[in-house]
Amino acid sequence: MTGVTASDGPDASAPGDGTARRRGRPPRTESAGTRDRILGAAREEFSARGYEKTSVRGIAKSAGVDSALVHHYFGTKEQVFEAAVEGAFAPVLAARDTVLDAPLDEVGERMTRMIIGLWENPVTRAPLLAIVRSAVNNETAAGVFRRLVASQLLRRIAGQIDSPDAELRAELAAAQLVGIAMIRYVIRVEPLASADPEQIIRRVAPVVQGHLTGP
Amino acid sequence: MTGVTASDGPDASAPGDGTARRRGRPPRTESAGTRDRILGAAREEFSARGYEKTSVRGIAKSAGVDSALVHHYFGTKEQVFEAAVEGAFAPVLAARDTVLDAPLDEVGERMTRMIIGLWENPVTRAPLLAIVRSAVNNETAAGVFRRLVASQLLRRIAGQIDSPDAELRAELAAAQLVGIAMIRYVIRVEPLASADPEQIIRRVAPVVQGHLTGP
Repeated sequence: MTGVTASDGPDASAPGDGTARRRGRPPRTESAGTRDRILGAAREEFSARGYEKTSVRGIAKSAGVDSALVHHYFGTKEQVFEAAVEGAFAPVLAARDTVLDAPLDEVGERMTRMIIGLWENPVTRAPLLAIVRSAVNNETAAGVFRRLVASQLLRRIAGQIDSPDAELRAELAAAQLVGIAMIRYVIRVEPLASADPEQIIRRVAPVVQGHLTGP
Repeated sequence: MTGVTASDGPDASAPGDGTARRRGRPPRTESAGTRDRILGAAREEFSARGYEKTSVRGIAKSAGVDSALVHHYFGTKEQVFEAAVEGAFAPVLAARDTVLDAPLDEVGERMTRMIIGLWENPVTRAPLLAIVRSAVNNETAAGVFRRLVASQLLRRIAGQIDSPDAELRAELAAAQLVGIAMIRYVIRVEPLASADPEQIIRRVAPVVQGHLTGP
């Protein structure tokens, strides 16, 4: 699975479903600073307001540039959102490779540790929370979430499993972790909200592993 | 567990955390129709707009009454929301009693069937979706969700389990089902979104049972 990172390029930049982004097309030397500033502003706007209430104009204003420049670098609001989500998703994708490098009988625990770890860290939690909030409330944002989670994460994990229902297995495993994120970090129901992360991992990793490779 | 329904009364009407509602105080004979009309309007408004964008004024207008009457019957917007959610939650609470009446080694399957059944039925799915959307985006709505789900559902299920970590077990079981609801019904990621409900129940019921009563 060492080729995973290298193969992200073509997948991400030419998904063939009309979501190709313009990022990277302007010469990087003169535009990287502006592009990053726009992306940072986009992340903050989407986090604070959610997808629906955020506008390209608001992002441009917050980044101190003209709206046309936002369109130039990213395209539509959906495409700015996708780029922002992809940035917020980068730690997930980096952690994913660690998960995929593990022996198959350890993938359950690695996957559980990855997700709990990302939600425990305030730096990665905030954008994840913004993604969940947007995806739950807006069909366009849900579509971006589906493309990223399904194609970049779950399908890769399913690819490790030798079973005709590998994708369903990966999703049921993900469902256990998504539910914990919802109850612990989003809605914050006790006692799960205050439970020791290691206690959760101890109880949940075998369940995740069972979904992936159990009978 | 035949006393479960009877004991809902005091719990629900006097939670002792400032959420006591005024419902039922006006003489039922002359007010039931108006109260129900307001509640129906509230449910529609909250479903369509979510908690934040809904106003008591909007609910009153949609019900064809004065805002003061909404306050008279229900109190604050939070209290109207709680009454509306409680109404939408009634099928869950009814189904809960069936779950609690089951032998302990069948609770996992009954709980799984209950939740999948409620989400499969479009009549109960719409208000559940509205509750999830509001709770994810608004702290007040999340609080209502916590009170209802934690005290009316999870604590009752935990009460059946003879273990010091019974509540955590109930929440981890609930997390599996919440995650499936999120992936299948809210975000709708394939193949889980189109999988046969019986296939899901077959795979998930043992996991839910394992959380509740496993080692």
